[in-house]
Amino acid sequence: MHAQFEDEELEEIRRYEDFSTIDWIEDSILERNRRIRASRQLGNASQHRPRGEITMEWLRCQWRRLIDTGQSWFVVSLVGICIGLNAAVISIVTEWLSDIKMGYCSDGWWLNQQFCCWEVDYDETDGCESWHPWSTVTLARWMIYIIFAAVFSFTASHLVRHIARYAAGSGISEIKCILAGFVMQGFLGFATFAIKSITLPLVIASGLSVGKEGPSVHVACCIGSLVAGLFSRFARSQGKMREIITAASAAGVAVAFGSPIGGVLFSIEEMSHAFSIKTMWRSFFCALVATVTLSAMNPFRTGKLVLFQVTYDRDWHFFEIIFFIVLGVFGGLYGAFVVKFNLQVAAFRRSYLANHGVAEAVTLASLTAMIGYFNRFLRTDMTESLSILFRECDNLNDNLCQTSVQWRFTNSLLLATIIRTGLVVISYGCKVPAGIFIPSMAVGATFGRMVGIIVKAIYRAYPQSGIFAFCEPDLPCITPGTYAFLGAAAALSGVMRITVTVVVIMFELTGALTYILPTMIVVLVTKAVGDFLGTNGIADEMIRFNGFPFLEKDDHAYNVSVSKVMRRDLHTLTESGMCVQEIENIMATTDVKCFPIVASATSRTLSGYIGRTELRYVLEKARKVQPISPNTLCSFKPETTTHDDLDLAQGPAVGIEEDVPTSLFDTATSGDGLKFWPWVNQTPITVSPQLPLEIVMQMFKRMGPRIILVEDHGALAGLVTVKDVLRFIATEKLDRESSWDERGGLDGFLEELWIWTDGAVQKFMAWTSRVLRR
Amino acid sequence: MHAQFEDEELEEIRRYEDFSTIDWIEDSILERNRRIRASRQLGNASQHRPRGEITMEWLRCQWRRLIDTGQSWFVVSLVGICIGLNAAVISIVTEWLSDIKMGYCSDGWWLNQQFCCWEVDYDETDGCESWHPWSTVTLARWMIYIIFAAVFSFTASHLVRHIARYAAGSGISEIKCILAGFVMQGFLGFATFAIKSITLPLVIASGLSVGKEGPSVHVACCIGSLVAGLFSRFARSQGKMREIITAASAAGVAVAFGSPIGGVLFSIEEMSHAFSIKTMWRSFFCALVATVTLSAMNPFRTGKLVLFQVTYDRDWHFFEIIFFIVLGVFGGLYGAFVVKFNLQVAAFRRSYLANHGVAEAVTLASLTAMIGYFNRFLRTDMTESLSILFRECDNLNDNLCQTSVQWRFTNSLLLATIIRTGLVVISYGCKVPAGIFIPSMAVGATFGRMVGIIVKAIYRAYPQSGIFAFCEPDLPCITPGTYAFLGAAAALSGVMRITVTVVVIMFELTGALTYILPTMIVVLVTKAVGDFLGTNGIADEMIRFNGFPFLEKDDHAYNVSVSKVMRRDLHTLTESGMCVQEIENIMATTDVKCFPIVASATSRTLSGYIGRTELRYVLEKARKVQPISPNTLCSFKPETTTHDDLDLAQGPAVGIEEDVPTSLFDTATSGDGLKFWPWVNQTPITVSPQLPLEIVMQMFKRMGPRIILVEDHGALAGLVTVKDVLRFIATEKLDRESSWDERGGLDGFLEELWIWTDGAVQKFMAWTSRVLRR
Repeated sequence: MHAQFEDEELEEIRRYEDFSTIDWIEDSILERNRRIRASRQLGNASQHRPRGEITMEWLRCQWRRLIDTGQSWFVVSLVGICIGLNAAVISIVTEWLSDIKMGYCSDGWWLNQQFCCWEVDYDETDGCESWHPWSTVTLARWMIYIIFAAVFSFTASHLVRHIARYAAGSGISEIKCILAGFVMQGFLGFATFAIKSITLPLVIASGLSVGKEGPSVHVACCIGSLVAGLFSRFARSQGKMREIITAASAAGVAVAFGSPIGGVLFSIEEMSHAFSIKTMWRSFFCALVATVTLSAMNPFRTGKLVLFQVTYDRDWHFFEIIFFIVLGVFGGLYGAFVVKFNLQVAAFRRSYLANHGVAEAVTLASLTAMIGYFNRFLRTDMTESLSILFRECDNLNDNLCQTSVQWRFTNSLLLATIIRTGLVVISYGCKVPAGIFIPSMAVGATFGRMVGIIVKAIYRAYPQSGIFAFCEPDLPCITPGTYAFLGAAAALSGVMRITVTVVVIMFELTGALTYILPTMIVVLVTKAVGDFLGTNGIADEMIRFNGFPFLEKDDHAYNVSVSKVMRRDLHTLTESGMCVQEIENIMATTDVKCFPIVASATSRTLSGYIGRTELRYVLEKARKVQPISPNTLCSFKPETTTHDDLDLAQGPAVGIEEDVPTSLFDTATSGDGLKFWPWVNQTPITVSPQLPLEIVMQMFKRMGPRIILVEDHGALAGLVTVKDVLRFIATEKLDRESSWDERGGLDGFLEELWIWTDGAVQKFMAWTSRVLRR
Repeated sequence: MHAQFEDEELEEIRRYEDFSTIDWIEDSILERNRRIRASRQLGNASQHRPRGEITMEWLRCQWRRLIDTGQSWFVVSLVGICIGLNAAVISIVTEWLSDIKMGYCSDGWWLNQQFCCWEVDYDETDGCESWHPWSTVTLARWMIYIIFAAVFSFTASHLVRHIARYAAGSGISEIKCILAGFVMQGFLGFATFAIKSITLPLVIASGLSVGKEGPSVHVACCIGSLVAGLFSRFARSQGKMREIITAASAAGVAVAFGSPIGGVLFSIEEMSHAFSIKTMWRSFFCALVATVTLSAMNPFRTGKLVLFQVTYDRDWHFFEIIFFIVLGVFGGLYGAFVVKFNLQVAAFRRSYLANHGVAEAVTLASLTAMIGYFNRFLRTDMTESLSILFRECDNLNDNLCQTSVQWRFTNSLLLATIIRTGLVVISYGCKVPAGIFIPSMAVGATFGRMVGIIVKAIYRAYPQSGIFAFCEPDLPCITPGTYAFLGAAAALSGVMRITVTVVVIMFELTGALTYILPTMIVVLVTKAVGDFLGTNGIADEMIRFNGFPFLEKDDHAYNVSVSKVMRRDLHTLTESGMCVQEIENIMATTDVKCFPIVASATSRTLSGYIGRTELRYVLEKARKVQPISPNTLCSFKPETTTHDDLDLAQGPAVGIEEDVPTSLFDTATSGDGLKFWPWVNQTPITVSPQLPLEIVMQMFKRMGPRIILVEDHGALAGLVTVKDVLRFIATEKLDRESSWDERGGLDGFLEELWIWTDGAVQKFMAWTSRVLRR
């Protein structure tokens, strides 16, 4: 099995090259060859069994067969359990850290406010006797609050900066690309996982306007990748690995929102590139296991999965649809606003703050804490404030429901909406784990609650008015909590541009059948507004901003054929007759990753292609076996006769066979030249140059080859990759419309501010040093 | 626009040929060309507009642009509204017909029992004063019940048989094939729609063990196809049409179960062949509109969408999972049993009952009525009996909840389970509209309720036992209604093999968040059992049974390359040099549907292919313009020079251009031969002969070409279609395992029975005639 090891080494090299794209067709052929070989081995073993006798060999095979069948279930369960446990721990730590900013528990420092006051019938604003605020003076409280925020954010951003940079941000856009086949080494690695898990509670507790849902998806995907990586079956096959990661992303959403079905839909609607029923089912199972684990851990001790689970007893009225539409419009506008300005902030951040990640995070956290402390809805933890806002007014003790203070609350809510929106714009994307789900929901909820209170006030003022005719006189007619709920759905849908998922998540939060139609209506309006404004979801825009090779899901009509897009200046190799020297020259003069192979320089009949890494690998490997003269002939032509030991000879189109190399390197010494053919992809996807670009894009999206060769009447004409297509689209778009990250927007302002601040700081420094020197 | 008309005629011919498959690549190229042309026309018009001036032309264009944007939304809404209205009418009629079997309302013949007794606090078994049973004698009641069932089923099957045969059955498997690209003329036509809508209430009311959910999906798809067919944009593009039909299928499930999200998931999990976010969103919107329409119609006057919506106040306990697993196992076994034997019955039906559809339906209905009358759960309408079984025992007036009669009910439920299963096996597939969703749920519910009652009895007998330790002493611990609910989910999931959809539907029925985990567990167990037994869902098995060209969604590993599967005996045409006579000879000697075109007979360089219908069409069309001598030369070579009027010249790979023909037929008269090239597909999908079969299957599934050509080093080597692949798989499977519909099973028994009955009837006839003659 020495050869196998070598080959795996090659695979390691070729497949995990950073920032390259996976060839899904090759991957699925490899996987298929493995399956056939495995089933043949098993078949042979069962044949060898003497009739009726049970040998050890046969038992071993049966056992292996069973293992094989159960393995993926086992892996998915394991992933689910780990995700559930991790989510529970993160939840508990987050809550404790959030509370420690305000005070401590005298019964034990490890208790958060809720557990500290468990026995007592406590009011969330005052706490109980065992819970001691840090100080009785407001100013001191405020200072301590800010200091904690700064310390938390400093720790988090410092860890991220020095140990795992990939732990910053939400991670959803990158995972989308990874699932589509992009390779980012270490993005789902252990360091990222550990640092993101540790820093996430700190960041949330620091009060930054970021959420834990996006990062929790990233953490879940890390867990999926790490756990599945322990099993050779998944470690070898990129396709199977991606299935597990998709399932893990579903589980991540499931535990973050306590919404298993929502998680499954999220993995379908947002994450999954190639949809398959099997993946859906895996996601479903993984989400189930993770949710059960979380509910068994019961981190909130409420028997509920999330903090803001709510129930509504009252029904909605048809006339309320007009207000729901207002909420939907707000969601669409909010989404467009945040996406536009957040991208501008990101452009600014990239230019000026690349090396000031820690300072940025600390500044933002302090600023948020300073401003936020004085607004009830900004001060409390976002999940908690959501749960307060969603609540139905059943008891009048809750002061949100009292008519006397309604206008004060309206102002407070409006202020919270505006400030939070601004904070989201500047905070999302800073160099700490940061999601945008919950902050968006918080913005939507404050706005929605405000609308709800206003509507209720109108109803109270004019109960006999026409539109309120449907209200039953003795019952409360308007439930402001439901407006908050719908507003949250609208904002979430507006910023992520996911639709069905949002409805299901909100539905799973409330379980209120009656509110499924309003949620659908709100999401529909949000989508219409977003489409009208022409924005994409923030994840897609981030992908575009970062320049990842990712084709968008929706199709445009481009009036060109693939011949306009393809690269024509190819570096071809001929099937036979080239010597090592020539090949090395070609490799030295260019850095293209792929060399098509033609029958002869004149006929240009395509016979396959070979990658740069494979070429280099074979050359190096052959040199190790024996010194090779520069004049050794190289052959790319398949010799099927030497390959009859495996029946796979009919099949292995892409010749990355685990069993071939030894014989190859042996024959390489026999003097009749170097044989490259087992590494030649003999079945490239070829298309005609007249094929419309759209169909080629569909092929990339649905079949997933790394390159497509263009063949005109049997002769090689060109080569096209996803990057070529994206380059074409980008230039095309540039002609048609102005770019998103144009100057003069928010980033222009920030730039001015930066220059000014920078100047001021330098002046101050100079002044200080002058003062000190004096 | 004469040419356009002619071309549409051609398209009509070529694309709607019955039992052929749509080429999705061609379809999407056509659609793309239309979009480009439309946008160019608009662009020209806006350019022609003098600066600042608003001309009529410009206004018209803007208007058209708006129409274009809004059209698909409008169509989807219209489809949704029609589906909602139709569902409401069907529900109302069904309920009236169901009740009329038992009695009539003296306040008005048009009232069903519920409305007749609306004001009165009525008990479902006795009715109220205005409601008169047909007779007070049980025997007479029974007779009348049977007579009604026979009359209803006779009317329904007679209508189906003589007006619209496609209205029979559930239609789900056929729609799956249609969505994948199979053409079945009239399957979604008006006759099918009308007859299915009319006969569905009759069939349900006749008491046959069939449901209305499958047929209601079919009816919804008919509505989608009919409504969208009114708009040229959808009528022209098969792809857009399929999107609407997919959305309609979602709406069909949504109105059938009152579950909009469940409908969307159904369309993803079961129906949709190529998943896209756009389709998902359309389905979502269509389901929303349909549900809102239905809820505005409020057919049940309860404010609820379905009859069996339930709410559970109580929670479940962890120890109950063992019983839930029992339910899951039952679901899996039930599914496997029903699928296996129903297919055998179908085989028997096809051989012997093809011309006895009416008699079969009447016999089945009478039999069902005769047996069913004496069992409470078989007699009542299935939806009603579901709602009774699901109910929580809150008041003790309900006799299902009384401890005194629990064993009587257990027996009754067991009997109902067994009889209903048998009835489902023989009834599903008979020649009336017949779904399998609700009967399966009914079977599962009776079984589940039985298990629930038994568990409750055990708990009552041994309340101190170990496993019941979690029960709180004063509260009811076991809720048999939830067992019925979970049993229904298990049976539905077992027979259809849909998973996530079932969970969502059940969730939307109850809105009980707490029951989402048990439902998932049950469905999981059901799936595991089904996988273990190796069965597919009934829809897939029916597709296989009927031999439709449909590739299953899951992948197998076949150890062959495409060269083993492809057809090698091709009838090729050469690019130039062939005369009309030759072509006609070739067309006469073979009936293949596709002719590859090669550069010359010797080189076999592929340059495209042309279909038989196109060849025939061009020949006929050219003959109409001018008589053609058999020696006229035919050219398949593209002449791009004549095609420069349209900038599309770069793009239109498949030359089915609406603007070309006139010029073509003009030049055809100019004596330099017949030009076929605008109808030649110049960009066929080509693959290498070494490509593994699996990748070719993926291509068929994901890209959807009608044929794939096999090219070896630039030369044509073969041709492969979906049918070739299916033929290969079938022979492969035959070698490995025995077929489903082998002799000696249920159909063997039925055959024996048939022969015996036939003999007996003939003997009886002979005897009667002898007696009469005497």
